[in-house]
Amino acid sequence: MDLKAFIRDIPDFPSQGVLFKDITPLLKSPEALRTTTERLLQMVNGEVDIVVGMESRGFFFAPILASTLNAGFVPVRKSGKLPGKVVEETYALEYGQDTLEILEDSISKGDRVLIHDDVLATGGTAVATCALVERLGGKVVQCNFLIELEFLKGRGQLNGFDVKSLMRY
Amino acid sequence: MDLKAFIRDIPDFPSQGVLFKDITPLLKSPEALRTTTERLLQMVNGEVDIVVGMESRGFFFAPILASTLNAGFVPVRKSGKLPGKVVEETYALEYGQDTLEILEDSISKGDRVLIHDDVLATGGTAVATCALVERLGGKVVQCNFLIELEFLKGRGQLNGFDVKSLMRY
Repeated sequence: MDLKAFIRDIPDFPSQGVLFKDITPLLKSPEALRTTTERLLQMVNGEVDIVVGMESRGFFFAPILASTLNAGFVPVRKSGKLPGKVVEETYALEYGQDTLEILEDSISKGDRVLIHDDVLATGGTAVATCALVERLGGKVVQCNFLIELEFLKGRGQLNGFDVKSLMRY
Repeated sequence: MDLKAFIRDIPDFPSQGVLFKDITPLLKSPEALRTTTERLLQMVNGEVDIVVGMESRGFFFAPILASTLNAGFVPVRKSGKLPGKVVEETYALEYGQDTLEILEDSISKGDRVLIHDDVLATGGTAVATCALVERLGGKVVQCNFLIELEFLKGRGQLNGFDVKSLMRY
């Protein structure tokens, strides 16, 4: 099954000059949804205790991956969305900056953590998420993506991590 | 398995006087995550073509439900997040209003649609989502929730729909 046939190019979204990779056709097809899950799981090596997914589109597949791997699911969210004590990482965007948070008690020392997001672009979100996991004592066993935008060179920011992506552009 | 043991009360979140039901302990436990999915599925009657999940916490379980039911997943999102042509519904909040959007081509006439969200509170989000689905020609076969806050009487706003919730407070 050619999953790229279910990715739709949206020019100038969310801002002028950006060609957005829209995954909603893939989510809407029962066959593509199931095949994507299977192929994301095939990329995983070894044992996983926790799957971390990033707000919001990382939430689509991270809980399915967790459930199938018999792992727990932990969300990483934007500032102010998580209840309770959090740790946070601030990272640079093209213009300005953003902050990601994780609950302090969501990962235990030594937990093997799979990080999943829909798209690897410049890598800012993934680098911040890896830092959050490591600050809580977790070990990042893989950074797992649906789509990698190779021309944005995010992989280069994730040196030392096992970076896997299902579709590359 | 007592799933309520995995729900944590957070006082005064996200604002003063609100007792927030935090589901992160349930997501983090592999057993609770799996059991929750099984029980949400047990509430479903009949055939489903599309599972609609609402941003952001509705995204945790809606894709798993879709995948298991051999249905597609369609996200309902806040204003400006979805690429392409959308239809929108604006609904009242305690103070002010909010707008939800769905992609115009995400549901076909006659599609049997299961709506899933984490919490049924006053029902504003669910009512708006049902309206979006029906405007696209879909038939809402169930409004499916993890948690129902009965004292907020959201169920009363969903007259004529099959409303099911896994945990009630």
